[in-house]
Amino acid sequence: MKFVTGTSTKTVTWQDLAGGGRNNPAAVHGAVHLLRDMGGVVFLTLRMARGMLQCVCPPRIVPRGLREEWCVEVSGAVRAEARAPGGLEIAAESITVLSRPAALMPVSLGRRRLGLNLDTELGLRPAVLRHARERAVFKIQEGLVRAFRDYLTGEGFTEVHTPKIVRAGAEGGSNIFRLDYFGKKAYLAQSPQFYKQTMVGAFERVFEVGPVFRAEKHATPRHLNEYTGLDLEMGYIRSFYDVMEAEAGYLRRAMELLAREYDEELALLGVRLPRADQIPCLRFDEAKRLAAEKYGCPIRDPYDLEPEEEARIGRYAREEYGSDFVFVTHYPSRKRPFYAMDDPDDPRYTLSFDLLLRGMEVTTGGQRIHDYAAQAAKMEVRGMDPGDFDSYLMIHRCGMPPHGGLGIGLERLTMQLCGLDNIRYCSLFPRDRGRLEP
Amino acid sequence: MKFVTGTSTKTVTWQDLAGGGRNNPAAVHGAVHLLRDMGGVVFLTLRMARGMLQCVCPPRIVPRGLREEWCVEVSGAVRAEARAPGGLEIAAESITVLSRPAALMPVSLGRRRLGLNLDTELGLRPAVLRHARERAVFKIQEGLVRAFRDYLTGEGFTEVHTPKIVRAGAEGGSNIFRLDYFGKKAYLAQSPQFYKQTMVGAFERVFEVGPVFRAEKHATPRHLNEYTGLDLEMGYIRSFYDVMEAEAGYLRRAMELLAREYDEELALLGVRLPRADQIPCLRFDEAKRLAAEKYGCPIRDPYDLEPEEEARIGRYAREEYGSDFVFVTHYPSRKRPFYAMDDPDDPRYTLSFDLLLRGMEVTTGGQRIHDYAAQAAKMEVRGMDPGDFDSYLMIHRCGMPPHGGLGIGLERLTMQLCGLDNIRYCSLFPRDRGRLEP
Repeated sequence: MKFVTGTSTKTVTWQDLAGGGRNNPAAVHGAVHLLRDMGGVVFLTLRMARGMLQCVCPPRIVPRGLREEWCVEVSGAVRAEARAPGGLEIAAESITVLSRPAALMPVSLGRRRLGLNLDTELGLRPAVLRHARERAVFKIQEGLVRAFRDYLTGEGFTEVHTPKIVRAGAEGGSNIFRLDYFGKKAYLAQSPQFYKQTMVGAFERVFEVGPVFRAEKHATPRHLNEYTGLDLEMGYIRSFYDVMEAEAGYLRRAMELLAREYDEELALLGVRLPRADQIPCLRFDEAKRLAAEKYGCPIRDPYDLEPEEEARIGRYAREEYGSDFVFVTHYPSRKRPFYAMDDPDDPRYTLSFDLLLRGMEVTTGGQRIHDYAAQAAKMEVRGMDPGDFDSYLMIHRCGMPPHGGLGIGLERLTMQLCGLDNIRYCSLFPRDRGRLEP
Repeated sequence: MKFVTGTSTKTVTWQDLAGGGRNNPAAVHGAVHLLRDMGGVVFLTLRMARGMLQCVCPPRIVPRGLREEWCVEVSGAVRAEARAPGGLEIAAESITVLSRPAALMPVSLGRRRLGLNLDTELGLRPAVLRHARERAVFKIQEGLVRAFRDYLTGEGFTEVHTPKIVRAGAEGGSNIFRLDYFGKKAYLAQSPQFYKQTMVGAFERVFEVGPVFRAEKHATPRHLNEYTGLDLEMGYIRSFYDVMEAEAGYLRRAMELLAREYDEELALLGVRLPRADQIPCLRFDEAKRLAAEKYGCPIRDPYDLEPEEEARIGRYAREEYGSDFVFVTHYPSRKRPFYAMDDPDDPRYTLSFDLLLRGMEVTTGGQRIHDYAAQAAKMEVRGMDPGDFDSYLMIHRCGMPPHGGLGIGLERLTMQLCGLDNIRYCSLFPRDRGRLEP
């Protein structure tokens, strides 16, 4: 009888070697990322799970026909070598072939930058993602998600998983995907809004990491039709500033984690981490006015922020407060969804906010209406029938604490952090109007 | 200028009080879960984010009209009280009302068990999820996911997020949801299979936690039309037993975490944690034969496991090896998808497995074909056109290490762990053929 015992399957990583494997024999595996035959010696760059390892190989041990993307195991002695990437190399003594590709790579991974046009790159995504820069983007993205979960778990939040096939959209508008659900009309969730509020009734504080679907018809460098939402919702808030504190707390944690554990990826991409420990807050109308005055641009629409205006507000925060982040608060009520709580001091505005990073929105949040009568009244003013939202409004009828929350676009945050100019670079397999594969 | 600094928003939890707050003044918030007026004293059970706190209130401080589900802040002195839940109570000195419900609860949360029929309970889900037993199920589920991520991150896996709107199904069959994607035919992902394999080419080891969609037309107590998949995929395996070791390693970690941090929820539900440190493995044909012989049931279909047969194999593992878990290996090739690697020793079978917990499948996994020619040939034998899977097969053409992976159904695992008899109890807002809300 064979038993499986749950032994760790951890293999030797680049980090293990760097951390103390010098002068020791080691056997490591990976793909041949780059191969340079210098005559008397062959330099093999091994792509490991994380990091690249230079392997110095005497020609006699190099398997016949060895090329890029063969998967191999290399055995030899690890040694310090200042000229090697990361200051480490292996003097190879043997190379075992584990698998061979059937064709050449459609791109050359050895170049520092791929230099492909966006459309070509996205079409070749499965190959392109093996490039060091692409890998770095998604390791940083992993760090952003790790910090989100770890921080919120520590703050007493419960992780939830809510349905993506829904009977009604939470955010209104026409940007919603329809599908047939056993003969009934259904939609793909535009956000977990109704469900995360519902879960505040059970757990006080919840978060979710999951896909969000928006059938945006326009193609911009900052929109995707499917993205990853980092959502949280918290009860018993004293004001919507508590929600902003939670976000800033998360961002501080994330920047600390990235600085500590993702320094090589940050260096490779030339990322400068923003500070998140003192984020200025400007009211919507005030932010518009200050940026318009300072940069001499007229305000065209008093109820909305255009992308150019967001960029100017970001610049203003940078120049006036030395901050890459800025909270813009008190958005006009007419631009916010029906569940947003109006400011009792001036109901033309809401107790809500966006967070801008380097001049682009990465988060939307605010306080929600918790009182049933207030919620039903606001829906009626907007021409909505509360009866259509019966199962959502059950929580308001049964009682809800004052609460609020936010949704962060993970790809948007990654893009602004890494200084990339198109959000498609921050989604492994982006979905836009024209792209359904890979 | 107002600045947000990222101060922790942590509030006083039940666990804080239990951990050392005795005899100290405290202010805690929560919902009135239960209210008992004993004449000279009012017992208020406060539902906190986790746990229930007994508040002993002199009638004079009780706000007029106070009822279940009002949200309140209670101030007073914490003290030990053996008869209170958790051995703790608060001698209330003041109660501040934070919000009031608009209607009575449709269910009474004070009963130990709700005792509703399934359909009623699911319709009232937003209210029902406030019940202590329901909360316990989903806290345990949170623990299962936490352990999955923490264990795999420690083992060198990278978390990924892959698209749920796809051009082609990965698992074949008719159980796939269709949608219109800007005039093109698209589907909801039946699994992240193609994408997680693709990411093995970039990161060697990856995992994903995300929704999975199956348009199953039948209604059973063990199927959902949308569930949460815990998926992993790992490269450079020596055999598919490496994948099974990774799963057992995760399960060991999960059981340790639950025992350490979720003991109250486990006790409330009467959960006995299974051991995962020595999981027996039986070949598919052998398992069928042994169970048939021991329990005197004939084998009806040599290529498939019926639910009753899974139950008998689970019982066999329990009786013969004292294990709640059992790996069933080497499933027939005709019952596994086209990407499954056949056993070179007997290609009627595959290098694959299911994991049963207490007689029900909770995981499917195995080694995948990494060689392009072998994959194309298997597709052709099945009447599939490799040209239809061009962007998936790019990874096989470009080269892939030997690799394998698995998918765990989170709700199924929760159900079997907690000993519940319907998977709908393990999904916050279950989707089945007839249910699209709440």
